[in-house]
Amino acid sequence: MMNPQVPLQVPHIGRLPAGARNSITDVEGVRVGHCTLDAGAVQTGVTVIAPHGGNLFTHKLPAAAAVINGFGKSAGLVQLEELGLLETPIALSNTFAVGALLNAQIAHTVRANPECGRSLPTVNGLVLECNDGYLNDLQAMAVQPAHFELAMAALSVEVAQGAVGAGRGMSSFGLKGGIGTASRVATLDSQGQSYTVGALVLSNFGRLPELILAGDPLGARLAASETPDTAPEKGSIIMILATDAPLDARQLKRLAIRAGAGLARTGSAYGHGSGDIALAFSTAQAIEADADCLHLALLADHLLDPLFHAAADCIEQAIVHALFAAETLRGRDGHVRLSLRERLAS
Amino acid sequence: MMNPQVPLQVPHIGRLPAGARNSITDVEGVRVGHCTLDAGAVQTGVTVIAPHGGNLFTHKLPAAAAVINGFGKSAGLVQLEELGLLETPIALSNTFAVGALLNAQIAHTVRANPECGRSLPTVNGLVLECNDGYLNDLQAMAVQPAHFELAMAALSVEVAQGAVGAGRGMSSFGLKGGIGTASRVATLDSQGQSYTVGALVLSNFGRLPELILAGDPLGARLAASETPDTAPEKGSIIMILATDAPLDARQLKRLAIRAGAGLARTGSAYGHGSGDIALAFSTAQAIEADADCLHLALLADHLLDPLFHAAADCIEQAIVHALFAAETLRGRDGHVRLSLRERLAS
Amino acid sequence: MMNPQVPLQVPHIGRLPAGARNSITDVEGVRVGHCTLDAGAVQTGVTVIAPHGGNLFTHKLPAAAAVINGFGKSAGLVQLEELGLLETPIALSNTFAVGALLNAQIAHTVRANPECGRSLPTVNGLVLECNDGYLNDLQAMAVQPAHFELAMAALSVEVAQGAVGAGRGMSSFGLKGGIGTASRVATLDSQGQSYTVGALVLSNFGRLPELILAGDPLGARLAASETPDTAPEKGSIIMILATDAPLDARQLKRLAIRAGAGLARTGSAYGHGSGDIALAFSTAQAIEADADCLHLALLADHLLDPLFHAAADCIEQAIVHALFAAETLRGRDGHVRLSLRERLAS
Amino acid sequence: MMNPQVPLQVPHIGRLPAGARNSITDVEGVRVGHCTLDAGAVQTGVTVIAPHGGNLFTHKLPAAAAVINGFGKSAGLVQLEELGLLETPIALSNTFAVGALLNAQIAHTVRANPECGRSLPTVNGLVLECNDGYLNDLQAMAVQPAHFELAMAALSVEVAQGAVGAGRGMSSFGLKGGIGTASRVATLDSQGQSYTVGALVLSNFGRLPELILAGDPLGARLAASETPDTAPEKGSIIMILATDAPLDARQLKRLAIRAGAGLARTGSAYGHGSGDIALAFSTAQAIEADADCLHLALLADHLLDPLFHAAADCIEQAIVHALFAAETLRGRDGHVRLSLRERLAS
Repeated sequence: MMNPQVPLQVPHIGRLPAGARNSITDVEGVRVGHCTLDAGAVQTGVTVIAPHGGNLFTHKLPAAAAVINGFGKSAGLVQLEELGLLETPIALSNTFAVGALLNAQIAHTVRANPECGRSLPTVNGLVLECNDGYLNDLQAMAVQPAHFELAMAALSVEVAQGAVGAGRGMSSFGLKGGIGTASRVATLDSQGQSYTVGALVLSNFGRLPELILAGDPLGARLAASETPDTAPEKGSIIMILATDAPLDARQLKRLAIRAGAGLARTGSAYGHGSGDIALAFSTAQAIEADADCLHLALLADHLLDPLFHAAADCIEQAIVHALFAAETLRGRDGHVRLSLRERLAS
Repeated sequence: MMNPQVPLQVPHIGRLPAGARNSITDVEGVRVGHCTLDAGAVQTGVTVIAPHGGNLFTHKLPAAAAVINGFGKSAGLVQLEELGLLETPIALSNTFAVGALLNAQIAHTVRANPECGRSLPTVNGLVLECNDGYLNDLQAMAVQPAHFELAMAALSVEVAQGAVGAGRGMSSFGLKGGIGTASRVATLDSQGQSYTVGALVLSNFGRLPELILAGDPLGARLAASETPDTAPEKGSIIMILATDAPLDARQLKRLAIRAGAGLARTGSAYGHGSGDIALAFSTAQAIEADADCLHLALLADHLLDPLFHAAADCIEQAIVHALFAAETLRGRDGHVRLSLRERLAS
Repeated sequence: MMNPQVPLQVPHIGRLPAGARNSITDVEGVRVGHCTLDAGAVQTGVTVIAPHGGNLFTHKLPAAAAVINGFGKSAGLVQLEELGLLETPIALSNTFAVGALLNAQIAHTVRANPECGRSLPTVNGLVLECNDGYLNDLQAMAVQPAHFELAMAALSVEVAQGAVGAGRGMSSFGLKGGIGTASRVATLDSQGQSYTVGALVLSNFGRLPELILAGDPLGARLAASETPDTAPEKGSIIMILATDAPLDARQLKRLAIRAGAGLARTGSAYGHGSGDIALAFSTAQAIEADADCLHLALLADHLLDPLFHAAADCIEQAIVHALFAAETLRGRDGHVRLSLRERLAS
Repeated sequence: MMNPQVPLQVPHIGRLPAGARNSITDVEGVRVGHCTLDAGAVQTGVTVIAPHGGNLFTHKLPAAAAVINGFGKSAGLVQLEELGLLETPIALSNTFAVGALLNAQIAHTVRANPECGRSLPTVNGLVLECNDGYLNDLQAMAVQPAHFELAMAALSVEVAQGAVGAGRGMSSFGLKGGIGTASRVATLDSQGQSYTVGALVLSNFGRLPELILAGDPLGARLAASETPDTAPEKGSIIMILATDAPLDARQLKRLAIRAGAGLARTGSAYGHGSGDIALAFSTAQAIEADADCLHLALLADHLLDPLFHAAADCIEQAIVHALFAAETLRGRDGHVRLSLRERLAS
């Protein structure tokens, strides 16, 4: 029976307009690719985000991460913190796939830069992960470097959402989670100039009673009719922010921290066992690896508030999108996660 | 005319019950004192939080801060980060009062510990602040060390809220802000044991269109009928968390970070010009200054989720309390901030 | 009797040449002023460093701090970390003078910017401190805002060293410490271009047996003939680095961290009770407070190694200068610190 | 011809005595294992440090890392920072081996804990690395998970030093670097009680002119007779500290930071391209994964200074040991690194 109290329309979060696709790919140059593994107990995959179409190792982008809760196994964040540079695509997958994807990132960079690790420095491969072990047989370690290449080959401005790519086996609020994306266009108060902020999340966090949908504590109502799930949360969320605003790494860290605001509005209190990690990059200006002097034009910090709201809003929106897009999935050992739509209709 | 769309009842935030007083003083031993300055263009004050009734310099408490947005001038956070210890009461006031209150903290500690700065170490006075310059004449530098002593003399488990103490001149969402307090009782899943988390906020952040009241984007509706306020936000919020749960400084930092989740749910995206700082302490075990070996009993991290939700919820509740308690105030140069209740009734 | 094993010449540290004055004021535009208080048990003072001759509140400089050991009570570091901007002169004094100097910084900025705290933001006064309580009667709280103004009035490119200004009552390695300064000129490998790095230290750390002078464990030899001093270290060191190299806040934090390398080479292991704090700023490009877009030229990170060595070397050199310049001083309660030269000659 | 100005004896660093083996394995329970790959252009390997002989996933140890310079690709540091727990052996190898070793760590933990990634959380594998690409063909990606198992099978309290295990292809100061180990016994001032601090380094940093050997700027003298090496430094150093002192993660981070002091005394200014990372753990008390309450006895912070000096000294000593133990090695493309002894004798 349909529950009359709950929305079937995807709510629009906040007061800012979305970009044309309501997707991280509204930031020009950004593309996303998925490789989905769907084979019985193996329900997992790889998602890659390519910030631009060129050689990232020679044309790096300013970037920064915010570790909101560090129960996570992501790789590449130490050097990102020191240098503030993105030099590979961003690879997302399950927790036990980090090793395979690090190897894939190295191979990918070496192929385009044969002196990497010889006369050139080694590469800092960026791999972020969530634990999809409820639906996926993590111990099968099914993700291989070739799946990274398949995801790279599938790069597109069209972004499938839900139970695809790295999102294949993810859960959120006891429901089916996965990939979500969104964007917002922010107009600066003093300038009238507009910039786009785009988000892509790998959403795998939360228990049902905590779910707040666009301000509505829906999860508490839904959970009231269920046997409580007493298992400790072992989820996580990876939150990627892209923008065309000209920001440096210090400013991008400020932007990344605002991802936590959007996350909180969905009901999360950054659970102990949840690796809640945000990463933001700017496509406005590439940093050439061999340049001795960098000439940068940067937005002043006092203009950032519209971008901060855009970041929080499009992260919340992307989480909502993941919940609405993900379909019910049956994974390892008969474990099932219902889609939000199916749960609402039940 | 009364606006039928908006609540006149204070909503209860979240799913956890409040403590007996719905106040930070529900954590046993914690007391709060105010000294309010109300004299024409001087609309400011001092609020102190005493974590226990003894000598904090000899019986320190585990504590930690989370700087969510560091546009702020608080003093004492460097040593707190290094040692994880609270060794003075927590003093709150306006931005230009930090010097006076540092002096007051030193005098207070030296009086009780005459060898402080001689054979004993110096004291790390903790002073946190917000900018109340819209209503208060900051440049008058009206706060003196004596006002700290008056606030200390007024310590009580009964906590006045709104435009009192350090909250006297504070604004929030373009309305009157100030002091708010709340508490939650969290029961640990695996143990059945309960702990109290209490919050006190000095709330001075946000623009009207951003206000979300218990999930409802009330501020956007209210702002729709107003001329937009285009002044940049120069607010801030100080968020103090107390708990009787036995936690160490690392765990208390994790708790403090969750204050940001509660803050976000009221509509904040941690504005550029807002010093958003949280500080958490535990009253469960004092650290004696001259002990060579510390015997501690600590809660395991995997039990912390109920405390994390309690922290987020009681910060949100405390912000709501400040809005509902603060009365309309006319300050320097004829500047006025309406109370939420008055704004809703208009 | 003269000890033949020890140097009476000031050794030159490292392989880089010093600037013309071997002083922080070799970085063009930087000036230093002292105000010394010498009155019986009061042996203390104020030192100010003015990074340029203009209005710092409207023409800020990129800056960053590194907290190597955070047992210290400095003010202003929270906002510095968030925004990476220096907006006041740097004030140094004793631990109990921070409040007075914060007030002085506010008054100084308000005088030049009457809207500070009204239509303009409040000011982030930077005050760093060490504990001179062995020689100075801290509890007298002798430092007043007027002493800051006197130090500002004394700004000069000529920098007195040793027991002057904030260094008046400081101790180092059980000997007389205080103010030291030095500079190095670094030539970039790939460019042939030269930049100056200057250091000023407020040196108040270390026990005698730990002293290493230009690689020579002199302190251990000297201490062998003494009754061991078993008092716990309550010292600290403040290390200021200036450079004319065009660096942003992220890069300046990297530079500041290298101050710890120079400090370590003098024998410090960053003692528990020592507030070891470094701060670096660049004079190359001012950030106008009301600019909406910043056009910056920055040195690439891969060119920084010569600057890193310059920073470590001139910090070590400045500590050595403080030891050689400081004269024997008798302070409160008959406490005496011998100068290094006197100790060597004894 | 023998150079009369340089030592052929290994100098003893500092004033504290070494433990029985002058090795990290002087900390009871700690063992080290190497697997060395020596095959033409492949000159690399794996070194593992097992902090105790039991199941680390169920009996974790307090631990913390200090990133002194973050130009590095180590894995596992995010969760270590959040939780302060070591739950795998520490694996060291080359930069391109991180993926293989992460997979090996997962397999090792799953074998001992079959529910890891199912009903139990996933495991945070700790892998630290340096770039040995000058002597070793990194792109061959020769390190496989089996090499981790071989190193684990070789665990012993006897620790080979120099060009073995992960140290096989490492360079330091333009000479042959690699594995070094050392220990110090620190007696607490107030208690008379002694604790051991042990160090193991993977030493791969520095240019020849920078080398300072026990205070003597030997490298500058040696380099004076050579054609300058103008290649940018691409080195790194991993510094592991073990202690039997009862410390928690906050205190161990303080200890880890002191590794940077020992490193600096060898001439390093923490080069831009050098991943300088320290990690410290305590064997005094295991944290049981399923305990709800932890009962800890901790040393007070004011007693830590002797341990801080021990940490700095044994890191410096371990770097010296690596230089003296490593033998001349010819690696990929005819690249050669001379041993220090051979360079001194030439």
